[in-house]
Amino acid sequence: MKARHDSICVFEFGASKELVLRLKDDVDLVQSITEIAKTKGVKAGTFTAIGALKRAKLGYYDQRSHEYRETTIEAAMELASCTGNVSLKGGEPFVHAHAVLSDEKGNTRAGHLLEGSVFAAEVHLTQLEGPALERKYDKATELMLWVPE
Amino acid sequence: MKARHDSICVFEFGASKELVLRLKDDVDLVQSITEIAKTKGVKAGTFTAIGALKRAKLGYYDQRSHEYRETTIEAAMELASCTGNVSLKGGEPFVHAHAVLSDEKGNTRAGHLLEGSVFAAEVHLTQLEGPALERKYDKATELMLWVPE
Amino acid sequence: MKARHDSICVFEFGASKELVLRLKDDVDLVQSITEIAKTKGVKAGTFTAIGALKRAKLGYYDQRSHEYRETTIEAAMELASCTGNVSLKGGEPFVHAHAVLSDEKGNTRAGHLLEGSVFAAEVHLTQLEGPALERKYDKATELMLWVPE
Repeated sequence: MKARHDSICVFEFGASKELVLRLKDDVDLVQSITEIAKTKGVKAGTFTAIGALKRAKLGYYDQRSHEYRETTIEAAMELASCTGNVSLKGGEPFVHAHAVLSDEKGNTRAGHLLEGSVFAAEVHLTQLEGPALERKYDKATELMLWVPE
Repeated sequence: MKARHDSICVFEFGASKELVLRLKDDVDLVQSITEIAKTKGVKAGTFTAIGALKRAKLGYYDQRSHEYRETTIEAAMELASCTGNVSLKGGEPFVHAHAVLSDEKGNTRAGHLLEGSVFAAEVHLTQLEGPALERKYDKATELMLWVPE
Repeated sequence: MKARHDSICVFEFGASKELVLRLKDDVDLVQSITEIAKTKGVKAGTFTAIGALKRAKLGYYDQRSHEYRETTIEAAMELASCTGNVSLKGGEPFVHAHAVLSDEKGNTRAGHLLEGSVFAAEVHLTQLEGPALERKYDKATELMLWVPE
């Protein structure tokens, strides 16, 4: 399969600031990064995180029905991987994060991270300076995606 | 186990440019990043991606027989994690990517991402400026790996 | 759940240097990155890695008993994802890494990466310049975590 060039939106960013965060007990991972983005004026950014969660809610987007299916995990899990970004939605910083969780035997669960109650978490957030990275309604997927200005 | 110092190749890079990409429906994730690397002159870089795929082909390298084993996943999956890099192979930008995919129940499949048909994907590609990062044949592993100049 | 603002420690960093590493056969991934951090004077940083391991030891932190449970994987696995950071512990560079591993069928195991014997690995380490990022004993979790000065 070849990439069709009109099928890729490219946004270029220049200088960046690096934020390292330690999230403490009982905060929500997604909400905390959202709050820090607002406080620090991060309008575009990307992050990774590792740590451990007390519970989590994972999402799966049904590509046919265009509905989210949610799985709540009521267990203490390692945050084996977490990757995400910050952009604007309705003019406000919005966090989109995916995660891989693992239990005491190393077994995994993964998906879109809707909620994650923190036991301990270490986040590296790169603030990007450049064009507006704004989510708008995409008819084809019924998701809020980035569109060039 | 200690690290033997001659067992690590280190390449140092300076300033970088940050590219944020939105990949649209039906393009291949690996091919699209390769194409953008060529268009933007990215000779060395690293990236992360999240999103959702319609189908994927994962690879596993057999460390004894030195052959790739492939698994094709004919299902809509979340791209729970994707990490990769861009370097040169035969003088052209080449993408090496690994991924973790998840289904509607959060169950996972992972490996070397050989092909990934995009439903929606958000990529953060950091362009690195510095020495040539070129893949050459490595006799011990029979893989194309980075070798210092 | 809302983020409580006193529950987030924020560390801001400025300019950074990008290191790309190729780890060779039989070195330990965690030890190798630790050694490079010491050699290059990396006191704070974050990294990602992909590749393949010959064996690994994964950890899971029991959030009730505050003890690590270890799982040793005596098998050749793809390093499907690896995310981590470098900070100081007792004044010396210390590596904290989490990983997702996958077998020949794409099945996964994940957790805190305590040991990882390398078959081949490609690492992108971002060196951060800024405040001291030092681990100190945290009474609530009984872990060594970052505390603002």
